[in-house]
Amino acid sequence: MSDKLVKNAAGRMVPTEVNGKKVIPYQGVGKYKPDYRKFNPKVATCADYPDDGNKVVANLKTALTKAGLKDGMTISTHHHFRNGDLVVNMIFDIAAEMGVKNLVWYPSASFPCHEPLIKYLEDGTIHHIEGSMNGVLGRFVSDGKMKGTGILRSHGGRYQAVQDGDVQIDIAVLAAPTSDPFGNSNGVTGPSACGLLGFGLADSQYADKVIIVTDNLVNFPCLPWQIHGNHVDYVVKVDKVGIPEKIVSGTTRITKSPDRLLMAEMTAKLCYEAGLIKEGFSFQAGAGGTSLAIANFFAKYMRDDNITAAFARGGSNQYLVEMLEEGLVKYILDGQTFDLEGVRSMRENPKHVDTSPFTSYNYHGKGNFASFIDIVILGATEVDVDFNANVNTHSDGYLLHGIGGWQNCLFGRNVILPIPLFRNRIPVIRDKVTTLTGPGELIDIIVTERGIAINPRRKDLLEKLKDSSLPIKTIEELKEEAEKICGVPEKINLTDEVVAVIKWVDGTVIDSVFKVGK
Amino acid sequence: MSDKLVKNAAGRMVPTEVNGKKVIPYQGVGKYKPDYRKFNPKVATCADYPDDGNKVVANLKTALTKAGLKDGMTISTHHHFRNGDLVVNMIFDIAAEMGVKNLVWYPSASFPCHEPLIKYLEDGTIHHIEGSMNGVLGRFVSDGKMKGTGILRSHGGRYQAVQDGDVQIDIAVLAAPTSDPFGNSNGVTGPSACGLLGFGLADSQYADKVIIVTDNLVNFPCLPWQIHGNHVDYVVKVDKVGIPEKIVSGTTRITKSPDRLLMAEMTAKLCYEAGLIKEGFSFQAGAGGTSLAIANFFAKYMRDDNITAAFARGGSNQYLVEMLEEGLVKYILDGQTFDLEGVRSMRENPKHVDTSPFTSYNYHGKGNFASFIDIVILGATEVDVDFNANVNTHSDGYLLHGIGGWQNCLFGRNVILPIPLFRNRIPVIRDKVTTLTGPGELIDIIVTERGIAINPRRKDLLEKLKDSSLPIKTIEELKEEAEKICGVPEKINLTDEVVAVIKWVDGTVIDSVFKVGK
Repeated sequence: MSDKLVKNAAGRMVPTEVNGKKVIPYQGVGKYKPDYRKFNPKVATCADYPDDGNKVVANLKTALTKAGLKDGMTISTHHHFRNGDLVVNMIFDIAAEMGVKNLVWYPSASFPCHEPLIKYLEDGTIHHIEGSMNGVLGRFVSDGKMKGTGILRSHGGRYQAVQDGDVQIDIAVLAAPTSDPFGNSNGVTGPSACGLLGFGLADSQYADKVIIVTDNLVNFPCLPWQIHGNHVDYVVKVDKVGIPEKIVSGTTRITKSPDRLLMAEMTAKLCYEAGLIKEGFSFQAGAGGTSLAIANFFAKYMRDDNITAAFARGGSNQYLVEMLEEGLVKYILDGQTFDLEGVRSMRENPKHVDTSPFTSYNYHGKGNFASFIDIVILGATEVDVDFNANVNTHSDGYLLHGIGGWQNCLFGRNVILPIPLFRNRIPVIRDKVTTLTGPGELIDIIVTERGIAINPRRKDLLEKLKDSSLPIKTIEELKEEAEKICGVPEKINLTDEVVAVIKWVDGTVIDSVFKVGK
Repeated sequence: MSDKLVKNAAGRMVPTEVNGKKVIPYQGVGKYKPDYRKFNPKVATCADYPDDGNKVVANLKTALTKAGLKDGMTISTHHHFRNGDLVVNMIFDIAAEMGVKNLVWYPSASFPCHEPLIKYLEDGTIHHIEGSMNGVLGRFVSDGKMKGTGILRSHGGRYQAVQDGDVQIDIAVLAAPTSDPFGNSNGVTGPSACGLLGFGLADSQYADKVIIVTDNLVNFPCLPWQIHGNHVDYVVKVDKVGIPEKIVSGTTRITKSPDRLLMAEMTAKLCYEAGLIKEGFSFQAGAGGTSLAIANFFAKYMRDDNITAAFARGGSNQYLVEMLEEGLVKYILDGQTFDLEGVRSMRENPKHVDTSPFTSYNYHGKGNFASFIDIVILGATEVDVDFNANVNTHSDGYLLHGIGGWQNCLFGRNVILPIPLFRNRIPVIRDKVTTLTGPGELIDIIVTERGIAINPRRKDLLEKLKDSSLPIKTIEELKEEAEKICGVPEKINLTDEVVAVIKWVDGTVIDSVFKVGK
């Protein structure tokens, strides 16, 4: 495939065709302007649906059969159950049993619980995955074993791809903690409540056929109806749709590592000194011990100065919920719940609002709210001296993480990456990132335990912080410091075979993931 | 135009082309199957919208100019302010001032407050109206004075027409009691709170340009966001967007007329005797003194028998809100609020849910919930011996009412029309309705003050009520009784000129409205 690679606007080598479809190389932030129309699903008619609103069929196999499951179809799923998902493997077990081949799986994310799908990638049931390929699935792809090429998209990019028709979903199979027979569904009620169903929104709106799988079938009306039954074809009742305890993302405890606590404290102090923590500000802090610690430090500043945030962007967890309940933040605008306290709060508190990639992240809309969040805290596996960052591959070239909302959040006003200077004695700051997930022009601040680098483009921040006692350095200084300790990292052995591509928020290809050499 | 009329499946003469566009004659209930795709709006990009989310422009003229207002465009508005709307006349005043001609106005309904638009229909600013043409506007149309042909659609049909691309909205101008600068908007908060904004949903989703007009601009996030700012191009602040006290539809008091009270009591008794008022049932009762009285009688049966309704379909008003608060109904699924108690309840009570024509009425969806409402109470200007009904014209041929949700509600399980046997000494039950708005096969029961007629198709109801003490008669008997009192009505003088067409829920033409002769 190497003969077809071209250099995109970020200087990365990318294909112009993926899985037989033309793709557009990345052109720069905000440079690619779509001049086409949205995807237009078929018009349905009530005449073809039961008057009594009862769309329940016997089981998932019946639903998939009625939906016309056949070779080559694209099957989509959401990941609100995260590692507690019980539906995806069922789908492909049935497909394999039916002898269906060459399916495309289009998840909003994959998790270790999906490891059983490896056998279907091997036997041709699944041709390729378009979605995050974490852990074991990523390793499979990096070793060049997947038949098709993987395509990774951000949460917003996934909505964009469906809306724009880049991906046409034949059958969406949406796990729902509660549904009525008409297919109105939500994630906040029922024994398997996982929070919300926003990652399934595009699927419900644009898929040809939509199947709801639930373990809590209630009488109409199922409210709130986060998914509208008016988009749904079939409803299936199963014993258990997911394990909500497993929605927990990474740690749920504030870090106790001294280095990470230091990074968290410096991040919060920097935000405070730069005047970013002010009345009516907004912030996004993910899950993970460092992020939780940062939110905790924010809370202290806010209490001391009597500051209220207009909203916090979730991934929600118990810490963010406490801030909401204490009145430190007016609203949580939540994209996914990361623990059961988040689920409870969303169910009970009207100020804990479920959002979707459409409202928060879709770059092909008339704006989205990611661009007006004041402080955005994100991670990265690598950053380079141009502030470019990688969240997908490790420095050994292996594809081990999805993009999530990471690219979308880069459009926030102040994007901060608190990252350790090195991991397992491998420096995190590099000359060049192994894989480019997000361009440096959108990344403002790198906070490490040994110093802070501010993007030279942010003259305003450099000016505000010029008298700070914080250890502000250049990114080159940070890189040198890491290399002094760990040595200069060796070049890794990557082949020129593209095993996956990384899409930018506008659907263009920002980078390739190459097969790892032996 | 008469040379182009064809006879449709209901035996009515209809054109095959309206305002230069081909239309499809009505083919029967559930017979017309769409085999095309939804309308696909242009793909937008965040690159063209402000990063800070501030879409506020100086005034409505600026917004209309930026939106590219020009000759021949289709301008849409919603009617949630009903007769208290202050925005529509502003739009056309500006258009007239700018010298723009031949606009199509696509309201979800029009009201007496829109009488000033007559001058723009006369001077060519507005070419024609697609939407309800009540009162004075209807009279103008019936007299053959509108340049184009009127097109009337139900609320669901309006959603269908936009979704299917039958109507392509160039600019939607949506009055919003509260909005943030991004365009997230709702109807439940702010000094002009009118309830909800569901009638503007299709407009926001499919219009090329969307303008929000508000008198209550709040900081992001405006919640609930009944309209998503992600669909919005411009936001305009005005002094006052509408007069919420004028949302009151007809009377807000239970009728005191002995005849109407009798009809209400018989309707409720009939429902009770037929076993329709039972645990978990659902009902829809509109505004108007008779409907309110019916709901009141329902409440008595429900209290006596300890029955709870699964939901009531609103138009909400204080009486329905009281039933919700008393626990007689579990949810109000509301399409529009008919008084300020309805607004308050929707704002405060999570069990008072705002709906849209998409969830409730769109016939070109995968079902809608109108078809599983147990008891539906509707009105009519005329009914004929085949149970066909007219809600648009009076027996003198004048077009004086819109369709509203009437056609959509016909899909309910038991459709009851409580109507007086005659009005102003003109019999309401006719050999043939002047205008066919809904086919008799969907209308189950006619209740008059002098007797009840059950559609012979409903053998089940006839069986259940065979021993009833209610005055059950044939519809022919009712007609004869009316004619005995009032005489046989004279034939009216209609020309063969089509001044408007009545669309069925699937977009086909069910009837024509003809110019009234001198």
